[in-house]
Amino acid sequence: MKFMGDKVKDIKITYIGGGSRGWAWSLMSDLAMEKQLLGTVKLYDIDYEAAVNNEKIGNALAGRDDVKSKWIYKVEKDLDEALKGADFVVISILPGTFNEMASDVHTPEHYGIYQSVGDTVGPGGLIRGLRTVPMYVKFAKAIEKNCPKAWVINYTNPMSICMKALYTVFPKIKAFGCCHEVFHTQTLLTHALKDLEGIEDVKREEIKVNVLGINHFTWLDHASYKNIDLMPIYKKFVDKYYVEGYETGKTGNWMNDSFTCANRVKFDLFRRYGLIAAAGDRHLAEFMQGNWYVENPETVMHWKFGLTTVSWRRRDLEKRLEKSRALVNGEKEFEIKPSGEDGVKQIKALLGLEDLVTNVNLPNQGQISNIGLGNIVETNALFRKDQVIPLMAGELPGAIQSIVTRHICNQNDIVEAALTKDRRKAFRAFANDPLVTLSLEDAKELFNQMIKNTEVYLEL
Amino acid sequence: MKFMGDKVKDIKITYIGGGSRGWAWSLMSDLAMEKQLLGTVKLYDIDYEAAVNNEKIGNALAGRDDVKSKWIYKVEKDLDEALKGADFVVISILPGTFNEMASDVHTPEHYGIYQSVGDTVGPGGLIRGLRTVPMYVKFAKAIEKNCPKAWVINYTNPMSICMKALYTVFPKIKAFGCCHEVFHTQTLLTHALKDLEGIEDVKREEIKVNVLGINHFTWLDHASYKNIDLMPIYKKFVDKYYVEGYETGKTGNWMNDSFTCANRVKFDLFRRYGLIAAAGDRHLAEFMQGNWYVENPETVMHWKFGLTTVSWRRRDLEKRLEKSRALVNGEKEFEIKPSGEDGVKQIKALLGLEDLVTNVNLPNQGQISNIGLGNIVETNALFRKDQVIPLMAGELPGAIQSIVTRHICNQNDIVEAALTKDRRKAFRAFANDPLVTLSLEDAKELFNQMIKNTEVYLEL
Amino acid sequence: MKFMGDKVKDIKITYIGGGSRGWAWSLMSDLAMEKQLLGTVKLYDIDYEAAVNNEKIGNALAGRDDVKSKWIYKVEKDLDEALKGADFVVISILPGTFNEMASDVHTPEHYGIYQSVGDTVGPGGLIRGLRTVPMYVKFAKAIEKNCPKAWVINYTNPMSICMKALYTVFPKIKAFGCCHEVFHTQTLLTHALKDLEGIEDVKREEIKVNVLGINHFTWLDHASYKNIDLMPIYKKFVDKYYVEGYETGKTGNWMNDSFTCANRVKFDLFRRYGLIAAAGDRHLAEFMQGNWYVENPETVMHWKFGLTTVSWRRRDLEKRLEKSRALVNGEKEFEIKPSGEDGVKQIKALLGLEDLVTNVNLPNQGQISNIGLGNIVETNALFRKDQVIPLMAGELPGAIQSIVTRHICNQNDIVEAALTKDRRKAFRAFANDPLVTLSLEDAKELFNQMIKNTEVYLEL
Amino acid sequence: MKFMGDKVKDIKITYIGGGSRGWAWSLMSDLAMEKQLLGTVKLYDIDYEAAVNNEKIGNALAGRDDVKSKWIYKVEKDLDEALKGADFVVISILPGTFNEMASDVHTPEHYGIYQSVGDTVGPGGLIRGLRTVPMYVKFAKAIEKNCPKAWVINYTNPMSICMKALYTVFPKIKAFGCCHEVFHTQTLLTHALKDLEGIEDVKREEIKVNVLGINHFTWLDHASYKNIDLMPIYKKFVDKYYVEGYETGKTGNWMNDSFTCANRVKFDLFRRYGLIAAAGDRHLAEFMQGNWYVENPETVMHWKFGLTTVSWRRRDLEKRLEKSRALVNGEKEFEIKPSGEDGVKQIKALLGLEDLVTNVNLPNQGQISNIGLGNIVETNALFRKDQVIPLMAGELPGAIQSIVTRHICNQNDIVEAALTKDRRKAFRAFANDPLVTLSLEDAKELFNQMIKNTEVYLEL
Repeated sequence: MKFMGDKVKDIKITYIGGGSRGWAWSLMSDLAMEKQLLGTVKLYDIDYEAAVNNEKIGNALAGRDDVKSKWIYKVEKDLDEALKGADFVVISILPGTFNEMASDVHTPEHYGIYQSVGDTVGPGGLIRGLRTVPMYVKFAKAIEKNCPKAWVINYTNPMSICMKALYTVFPKIKAFGCCHEVFHTQTLLTHALKDLEGIEDVKREEIKVNVLGINHFTWLDHASYKNIDLMPIYKKFVDKYYVEGYETGKTGNWMNDSFTCANRVKFDLFRRYGLIAAAGDRHLAEFMQGNWYVENPETVMHWKFGLTTVSWRRRDLEKRLEKSRALVNGEKEFEIKPSGEDGVKQIKALLGLEDLVTNVNLPNQGQISNIGLGNIVETNALFRKDQVIPLMAGELPGAIQSIVTRHICNQNDIVEAALTKDRRKAFRAFANDPLVTLSLEDAKELFNQMIKNTEVYLEL
Repeated sequence: MKFMGDKVKDIKITYIGGGSRGWAWSLMSDLAMEKQLLGTVKLYDIDYEAAVNNEKIGNALAGRDDVKSKWIYKVEKDLDEALKGADFVVISILPGTFNEMASDVHTPEHYGIYQSVGDTVGPGGLIRGLRTVPMYVKFAKAIEKNCPKAWVINYTNPMSICMKALYTVFPKIKAFGCCHEVFHTQTLLTHALKDLEGIEDVKREEIKVNVLGINHFTWLDHASYKNIDLMPIYKKFVDKYYVEGYETGKTGNWMNDSFTCANRVKFDLFRRYGLIAAAGDRHLAEFMQGNWYVENPETVMHWKFGLTTVSWRRRDLEKRLEKSRALVNGEKEFEIKPSGEDGVKQIKALLGLEDLVTNVNLPNQGQISNIGLGNIVETNALFRKDQVIPLMAGELPGAIQSIVTRHICNQNDIVEAALTKDRRKAFRAFANDPLVTLSLEDAKELFNQMIKNTEVYLEL
Repeated sequence: MKFMGDKVKDIKITYIGGGSRGWAWSLMSDLAMEKQLLGTVKLYDIDYEAAVNNEKIGNALAGRDDVKSKWIYKVEKDLDEALKGADFVVISILPGTFNEMASDVHTPEHYGIYQSVGDTVGPGGLIRGLRTVPMYVKFAKAIEKNCPKAWVINYTNPMSICMKALYTVFPKIKAFGCCHEVFHTQTLLTHALKDLEGIEDVKREEIKVNVLGINHFTWLDHASYKNIDLMPIYKKFVDKYYVEGYETGKTGNWMNDSFTCANRVKFDLFRRYGLIAAAGDRHLAEFMQGNWYVENPETVMHWKFGLTTVSWRRRDLEKRLEKSRALVNGEKEFEIKPSGEDGVKQIKALLGLEDLVTNVNLPNQGQISNIGLGNIVETNALFRKDQVIPLMAGELPGAIQSIVTRHICNQNDIVEAALTKDRRKAFRAFANDPLVTLSLEDAKELFNQMIKNTEVYLEL
Repeated sequence: MKFMGDKVKDIKITYIGGGSRGWAWSLMSDLAMEKQLLGTVKLYDIDYEAAVNNEKIGNALAGRDDVKSKWIYKVEKDLDEALKGADFVVISILPGTFNEMASDVHTPEHYGIYQSVGDTVGPGGLIRGLRTVPMYVKFAKAIEKNCPKAWVINYTNPMSICMKALYTVFPKIKAFGCCHEVFHTQTLLTHALKDLEGIEDVKREEIKVNVLGINHFTWLDHASYKNIDLMPIYKKFVDKYYVEGYETGKTGNWMNDSFTCANRVKFDLFRRYGLIAAAGDRHLAEFMQGNWYVENPETVMHWKFGLTTVSWRRRDLEKRLEKSRALVNGEKEFEIKPSGEDGVKQIKALLGLEDLVTNVNLPNQGQISNIGLGNIVETNALFRKDQVIPLMAGELPGAIQSIVTRHICNQNDIVEAALTKDRRKAFRAFANDPLVTLSLEDAKELFNQMIKNTEVYLEL
């Protein structure tokens, strides 16, 4: 890296999962618009073709007039090669294929267990975690070997399990995990401001929030816009829309879009616990005891959110592959626009160019006072030159803390089970998930079946 | 108090709930047999007649030849008078009457919620707690005023809530809580020793255990008899009796005795978590999610334990009253025999006469490393002259810790709710109990009904 | 308060010590230049005349063209009246008079103990602390009664003892303590940047630092300017100037200005511990064992800093009084210029107008991981709408932590001694100070003498 | 091991430093008198001849009538061989020779630094620590390899550094450290009981104490004999003997015996801090700032204890060697008598034969609440079958805690410095010792000289 004037040149970013047709494109777009940064992005992916396509798409940007910064994209087949000398490492992978994901999400349905996402907690999230840990062990070791001082940005789920694995294998890793669920809740608060106070055009970054919890089960106990306290406004908002719900999804309504919801779960949780749950309803629902929000498809419909099926994901992938082909062939032009993610801002802040406060996943050093040290938590942090400094987020209310603790225990057990190849411990975590309301025998049967469906990825 | 030779004289014990026909009689019996101690027991009870009867029963012992130590029993109508100058205070009360208990235990059944005891956790335990806190506030204040240096021994349930209330109101109180559930588990281990190893005549005190958890949800991660590790033996024992169960109750089998069980819940928990659950099945079952062991009377029957009905308790009380009358009239002679409780041994140890290691409930000072400080936990402690010194018990396995944490949160919220008259907070704890698997609306309805049934005791 | 557009009106600030001729004037100046804020400052001072003078000086500003915001200044004789309804409370007082300060600083000299400031630690700082606590008890109670939700900004020394007293008496107080010593160290780093790298015109706010320690014994383990790591640069700077020293004082050199120094103590501490000590040498020296930097006046001269005598302070006060008279009479015009303090920026941030990261003194919630919770520490914090959120500062190196711990213990003991009127405990803290290298008898004699000299302020 | 009836046979003990003429003989004597234990002691020593002599002395016991248990003693040349299959490992070595010890103790005298023992803290203790760590690294690794489940009993000084090294290298080691200094303080309390209360024939084990601190700087905040509180009695005792002192040494008075003292330092510390310092004055003095008790030989004489010179130790060794020769030759008969040490009782307790409460050195798990976790502390523990369970000892008073913290920091830095070969860190610890009241330059010079004198043992 070279620091000159207000620019930093020769930055080396390594992208693990560089064939991605989501996060990778967002990064390309954001980098293209950022004039203070310049360098190379190495793309590593087990799907080599996908990476090659992204290399083409990325390098094609350099010829365009609307691009402020011409980055070089370069495929690397070898992980060590890809990482050597990296300043930043981005990890955004799909652990396994849609076949394993189908087992994660749908096999439990045979036992009456429904999951809206199945990638974080619940039987699906835990088994996915088991499968992911060995991959992250490999990444952590390779980072320690090739670029121990690099900053590592993780986008992969299950976030907490991925992060815990990285820090367990290489305790001095400089890794943090990013997720945009809190951003969407900030956006929801701008809606409340407009709806109840008539204040328009507020950007989500202007909504200041205190974030505490774990990924996809994150909470806000403080929210404000300038001098305005948003907590009482949100209360009114909940009262107004509790029964009918309030939809914020982009592309449609909750009935035909897996990612849309009516925020009814969020509103119910506010009434139960008094804090703003800051993740999509699909995610939140899975953390609670099974019979509340996901007992069966009817319950889910009652709460007005969708079960994200794997068949939907398959169709969605088809569209993305099609788009990728079109971009590579030049049939379609890559659209440069802000992704809404904080990745590039974080990089700028870590390079000392500007301060940034945003929410990230990190080992708890005390930022949440009533969660054990070392557990992966999500709170705000200040990004500065070569530092990610957590902000003291305070303590979770008892009721939420006990639910968080249960999931943290399970996630830690999954990581340990994967690291020590302890199938028994993995089962204990599995049976302890709130969605697993089965007898010991049935739980065992389901566990064994799900393990079998993903065993090629396990070393259990 | 006067210390002479190896005896301590002029000891002053105050018994709150001194009309009790259970614990009070045990104490009388144990004191009568203990030649190193001598003094006065003041009996205080809101049921004055009951206390007067116990005064008679107690003082009658002084005339008997088989009594080693002639204690004076004395009724006191006024709490302050009763406590003035006390060296030891014993608290063992029924918070409210059987009417309130009937609501605690049976009202939730209308909502499909079954409880086997309903005095510790679950909707019944929490509402009972709400009712008990104001009484314990009074006790704590009176102790602070009249005998701040006295040792306070609590037997009342809900133990954790009672203890938390005492320590919150008077932080320097020297109180501990006693419960014999762990003793019964030690006894079960002597059965295993006999059954599998042929070793007979082992006393429960000879079974050395490491105790950790909260009252009625206590666990052993270490158990030994002399040089023999009992953990693998217990595993074999569980394997042998997992399906049929193993009964240890005194008076009959689990089908006709509320207090007997076949230990099947205990065995199931061992298989799930790897530690020995050290409380009766009736208690343990209530701490777990509702559908496991107490979903309905059939489930309970399947697991071979009993739901302790309040009508059973009413019948039992009749018998005790009858016995009391007979003892007072001299129709029956009071039977002096070891109670099996540790109360008198604890008093001796606190007077410096001998060391004692036993399990007690105390605020966590770190004896359980992964439970927050200040929460009431049950572990072993060393009793010495004017000291109760907790032993470091180590850490709970994650899965158990998360369940324990949930109940601790609820218990603390109940105490705070009662202290600050915060009905909203009380409801949050109530709705967060694992047995309360209702919608927010139904939970609210049940809560309001149960509150109404006990409201004369509340200041909510 | 009213929030309109980007302005906040009707702000109520109460200034305890409002007759001050230092901090009060800084505040007036900064408020006059800040167009987003408007309101009233109530001036309370036991020196009523001084407050009246400041009222005149403050209100005179309203007529000036160069003033952006016309604040009203109003003297209040009664503390309760002054505090009623306050949004912000500033406390900046002299505890006692120069007579007591003379005893604090100079009486120990008869026992061979020299102090360069004598207001923080050392025999003088501790006795000053004893005298200050009763005053702060009064403030804390009055704030709890009259404006429990106000933000309280403390400038008085001994900072840690003042803060500890406030939080002990009123645990929910929203107080923080401010000190500019770290700012000066940031300035020193801009000198190093210029001297060694030729980079000019860097503002002290552009120097990003991680702050950890206690007031006047604060340390930096991370310092950067944009992408440049300043730690290796500082090392070179220390090597270059270790022997001769490097002077940064404004008004002259260390020989004729009590507040100037050659930073030689700072450089020596860097070599000993590897971190940048971020306070003036005069302050730092007093925290270390007596024979290192302040054994006698010759040692002090060797290290090139000055002992701040009370006679110097008396002369300085004369000048300030003269200036005050001139300002009141209109002989002289009040100069409006940035004070360099963060007070007004902090108020803006607390009103939600902008984010601010700066260093403040707060009870440790874990921001320093190896200092006990609840002790007053100095670290960075993020100021936001109604929030002061500490940043995780990490851990102090062992050698520094043990020195910090010693002083924290003494400071806490002084607070407790003052609160419980425990002269014995006060002496223990006194005798435990590193500068008190006397036998128990001599220490007692000195202590008694110093107590006598200030006893009118004590309730010991 | 075989457990039969109340006896345990085939116990395997490995003695590292098995040629010792102190602790090894004590062990032989205690084992010979203990009828419940039987087995083999392997003797390993770098001084092979010494081990062979002890083998002879030990095996000779088997033929004697007064021996209750015939143990086999066996020399092993190879450390791995010696440790293979061990149930217990005893470590009691002299790290280096008297030449290095002479440098530890006497080189600092050239810089005006006097040490009464020089084996724990102070320049001597720290340099000795540096030399010892590599040896303990070897032991820890060999134990992990050959007998990871063995209980390891350490007697070597510097205790805290040895223990920290063992636990750092092999975190699951089951090691504890033993020291008899607390026992002597219990004995002193029996003297006070006799002197002031006329109570005679009290055994030191009957004095119940709460122990907290670090080795050789251990404190009692609670002491009792049966129902008698000893704290006020000790206060009277201190008042009576403060000026003249009170001697408890065995062989003579403090003027001609290095190990005797008049307890004046102990009494002075009681007056300063209110707790009973529970180690010999020679040890205690070295922990305090240099000018208090060991400023120069006159100060030491004033406080009536002795500087233990190395020449004294050389003469003492001569006597022991002579005695060894006589025992081997049969000129003298080995005297079987209780050693007063707890080693064999601890072994019995760890085998499940009886409970034992005694003081030991262990990593802090929270037994001292205001000392960081993982640091080596000395408190009471309960010994049971395969368990050493620390008792909660509470918190150290602030003034003592800060001194303890300083030494812990230095000790930890020494261990880390030795492990990471970081000479710079070793110097920081050295310069931070309270006895090192030198300028940075002088401290460096002394450090370099002392390092040079022991460098053959270092890998720095």
